[in-house]
Amino acid sequence: MQKPGIPKGTRDFGPIEMSKRNYIFQVIKNVFTLHGYAQIETPSMENLDTLLGKYGEEGDKLLFKILNSGDFLDGIDKNEWFARHAASASLAVCEKGLRYDLTVPFARFVVQHQHELVFPFKRYQIQPVWRADRPQKGRYREFYQCDADIIGSNSLLNETDLIKIIDEVFRILKIRVKIKLNNRKILSGIADYIGYPDKITDITVAIDKLEKIGREAVNHELLEKGISSEGIQKLEPLFILSGENLEKLDGLSSLLNVSIIGMKGIEESKQLIGFLNQMVITSEIGIDLSLARGLNYYTGSIIEVKARDAEIGSICGGGRYDDLTGVFGLRDISGVGISFGADRIYDVMEQLKLFPSETSESSKILFVNFGDREALHCLSLVNRIREKGITAELYPESAKMKKQLSYADSRHIQYVALVGENEMSQGIITVKNMLNGDQFTATVEELVDKLS
Amino acid sequence: MQKPGIPKGTRDFGPIEMSKRNYIFQVIKNVFTLHGYAQIETPSMENLDTLLGKYGEEGDKLLFKILNSGDFLDGIDKNEWFARHAASASLAVCEKGLRYDLTVPFARFVVQHQHELVFPFKRYQIQPVWRADRPQKGRYREFYQCDADIIGSNSLLNETDLIKIIDEVFRILKIRVKIKLNNRKILSGIADYIGYPDKITDITVAIDKLEKIGREAVNHELLEKGISSEGIQKLEPLFILSGENLEKLDGLSSLLNVSIIGMKGIEESKQLIGFLNQMVITSEIGIDLSLARGLNYYTGSIIEVKARDAEIGSICGGGRYDDLTGVFGLRDISGVGISFGADRIYDVMEQLKLFPSETSESSKILFVNFGDREALHCLSLVNRIREKGITAELYPESAKMKKQLSYADSRHIQYVALVGENEMSQGIITVKNMLNGDQFTATVEELVDKLS
Repeated sequence: MQKPGIPKGTRDFGPIEMSKRNYIFQVIKNVFTLHGYAQIETPSMENLDTLLGKYGEEGDKLLFKILNSGDFLDGIDKNEWFARHAASASLAVCEKGLRYDLTVPFARFVVQHQHELVFPFKRYQIQPVWRADRPQKGRYREFYQCDADIIGSNSLLNETDLIKIIDEVFRILKIRVKIKLNNRKILSGIADYIGYPDKITDITVAIDKLEKIGREAVNHELLEKGISSEGIQKLEPLFILSGENLEKLDGLSSLLNVSIIGMKGIEESKQLIGFLNQMVITSEIGIDLSLARGLNYYTGSIIEVKARDAEIGSICGGGRYDDLTGVFGLRDISGVGISFGADRIYDVMEQLKLFPSETSESSKILFVNFGDREALHCLSLVNRIREKGITAELYPESAKMKKQLSYADSRHIQYVALVGENEMSQGIITVKNMLNGDQFTATVEELVDKLS
Repeated sequence: MQKPGIPKGTRDFGPIEMSKRNYIFQVIKNVFTLHGYAQIETPSMENLDTLLGKYGEEGDKLLFKILNSGDFLDGIDKNEWFARHAASASLAVCEKGLRYDLTVPFARFVVQHQHELVFPFKRYQIQPVWRADRPQKGRYREFYQCDADIIGSNSLLNETDLIKIIDEVFRILKIRVKIKLNNRKILSGIADYIGYPDKITDITVAIDKLEKIGREAVNHELLEKGISSEGIQKLEPLFILSGENLEKLDGLSSLLNVSIIGMKGIEESKQLIGFLNQMVITSEIGIDLSLARGLNYYTGSIIEVKARDAEIGSICGGGRYDDLTGVFGLRDISGVGISFGADRIYDVMEQLKLFPSETSESSKILFVNFGDREALHCLSLVNRIREKGITAELYPESAKMKKQLSYADSRHIQYVALVGENEMSQGIITVKNMLNGDQFTATVEELVDKLS
C-alpha cells in the first residue's frame, strides 16, 4: 500500500481554492480581452535548446529536464559520460524541458509563426511554469503566470495601455498597489555617469537589492565588484532625488547629461509619465531608480507592482525588450509586456480577505433522495432547473436525512428540496432555506423564479 | 542563430484556435457546474510511484519522466547502473513523472485529502496530460482531458446523471452522437458462459477490437490466446442479439444465467436503461456487448461516445470502478466517471463546421492613430468604451492609414473609429463599419449604445 503524496513544491487545489483562483484568472482575462489582447497557448515542453542560455546560468540549473523516451542510454560512451558534470551529462539524455516562463516560449512562437501573424501582435497567455527552485513559503515549483505582451511597436502608448491594464486589474480585485517605473536606459546612463559603462550588469544587480539589503550592503557589493568609492559616492545624489515624477526626472537629467543613452531613457520616462497623467489611473505611480529587475533582456521601460497593504514581493512586473526574438532569428522587433503573479495575488487577497463571498461555485439547491421512485421524479425536476442555468443536484443515495442535510451544509448549498409522495401527487416542491430555516412550497416554475 | 521549433507531438495554439478551444471547454465546464461538480486541479508532476503500474506495462513506457535536479548521478554505481535496462535505470535518476491521465491523480487526491472531503465527492478537472506515444494524426503527446467523477456512491443515478451530462454537452456543441453502454460484469459473465472465467482480460481485449478488425480477426486472436473453437462458437449468438436495449438484455439473460456476476451486470444495465428512459435524452443510446475499453480498473458500467457524422475514435468515455483508491489505501469506495477528449471534439467540430462564428474573441472597434495628440484623446475614449465591457483598442503607432485598416481587417475587427482635429473639437467620433462600408458619426455614449 502506498502512502499518497505529491512532489515537494507542488500543490493540489480543492474546490474552494479553485473558485478563488478562477476568480483572479477571470478578472485578468477579462481586462486583457477588453484591451484587445488575444489568447495563445504554447506546449508545456520546449526543446532544451530553446530554453538554455535564456535565463542566465542560475536559470539553466532550475530547468526541469525530461528524460528521453525509450532506451535513453543507447549510444552513450559510459566512461566519457560519467566523467562529465551533471549539467553536461543531462543534455545527453534529455532533449526537452518544461517551460520556465511564458516570455521565451512567446518569442519562439512569434518567430516560428511570423508569417501567419499580423504585427503589432498583442497576445496574452495564462499557463503554469516550472522551476526547480528550493521550495519555501510562497515559492512553488509549479505556478501560474498571466502575461500580456505586444510585439512589433515601439510606441510608449503600449506601456501606457499596459499600465492601465495593471491599474484596472488591481482596482477590480480591490488590491491597493504602487506601480514603480524605471528605464533600463537610465540605468545605463547611471553606469556612464559614475564612469563604469561596462559594469552596467553588476551595478544594476546591486542596485536592485537596495530595498532588501539597504544602502550600506549595496555599496559594499559595488566595491567588491570593482567600483571605486568615488564612483559609489557619485551614486548617492541619485537616490535622494525628490518631488513629483517629472521633477525627479528633471533633477536626474541635470546629472546624467553626460550620457546620451541616459538622456534618451529620461526622455522616454517623461513621455510615459506625460501620457499616464492624462489617463484615469487609481494606483500610485512612482519613478524608482533602484528598480532594475533581474532579467537581462529589458532594454527600455521597467515596471514593477507592489501591494501597499501586504508584505510580499512584487505581484506584477514587466518591461520593454528590443531584441527578444533576435536569438531565434527575427531581429529589430521591439516588444513590451507585463506578467501577473497569480499565486502571490492569491496570497495577498487571502491575507486582506478580499475574495467576494460568491466566488464559491457550489450548487444552489440539493434535492433530497427518498428512494428510487422519488429520485427519478426529482431528477427530472433537477434537469428542468438546470435548463434555466441554475446549478442543482440530487443526492445520489437514499441515505438518512441527517446525512443528506449535512452534505448540503458542508457544501454550502443554500436550498434543500424535499419531494415525497405528497409533493409528487400535487406537483409541488417543499423547499427549505438552510441559511434561515424558512420553509415554503412552490411549483418548479416558481422555484426557478425564486432562485434566478 | 536557432531555428525555432517545438517537440514533436506538441502544438502551439494561436488566437483563433484558442477561441474555439475555449468555447468547447466553457460548454463542458458549464454543464459540469450545473450538475454540481466542483473543479479541482492537481500538479502536472506526480511522484513516479503514484503513476507506475497503474496503466499496464505499455502505459509505464509512455510516462514522461523528469530528471532529478542537481547532481542526478551522485551515488550511482556506474557499472551496476549501466547493466540495467532503460526502464530500471531511469528510476535511479528520476523520481517524478508528468501525469498520464486525470483519473489516477484524482484517486491519489481523494485518498490524500479524504478527511477534508465530503462524500459523495463530485469533482471535475480540465487539465493537460502527457504521453510519450508515437505522434500521428489526431494523437498528441500533450492533450487536454475534461473529466467528471463522483466517488463514494454506488447508485446508478450517478451513471444516469453523467450520461445526461454527455447528452447535454453534445447537444449544445451540436454534435450528433451515439452513446454506447456495456457493463464489465456482463463481460465477466460472458467469460464464465464460454467456460474461460480466468481469461476475461484476453477475451475483452480481443472483443474490444471487433469494430476495428472484424469478427474473423477477433476469433483468430481468441484462438491464439487459448480459447477453444467451441468457446468461440458460444460467443457468436451474443453478437447478433437484436431489438431495443431492454429486449437485448432479456435475450442475454437467457444465455448468461449460468453466471451470477453476469446476471448482476444485466440487472444493473436494465436498471440504468430504465432510469435513462425516463430522462429527456437527445442522443441515441445503445447496449454494445463488444464495448470493453482498454482500462483494467472498470468494474461496472462502461460508457463510450462516438460522433455519428464523423469518422473518428471515441470522443468521450468512462465507467465505474469499485476500487480505484484501494491501491492508495482507501478501500471499498466506489466511483464512476467520464472523460471528454477535447482535441478530438475540436477536430469533429472543425470537420463539420460546427463552431459558432462569434467564438472569435477579437476587438469590436479599433481607433485609428493620427499622432500623439489624437492618440491620447482616443485612449480616453477607448477606456470609456471598455468600461462598458466592450473590447476596444487604439492602434499604437501613427502608421499609414492603409496599414492600420489592414490590421483591423486581418484581425476581423468590425468597426474602425476615426478621430481627427474636427472630431476632437466637436466631441464626436466618425465610425466606419468594415463589413458594409457604412460610415456614421456618434458621441461616445451613442457609440457604446450601438456596440452593446
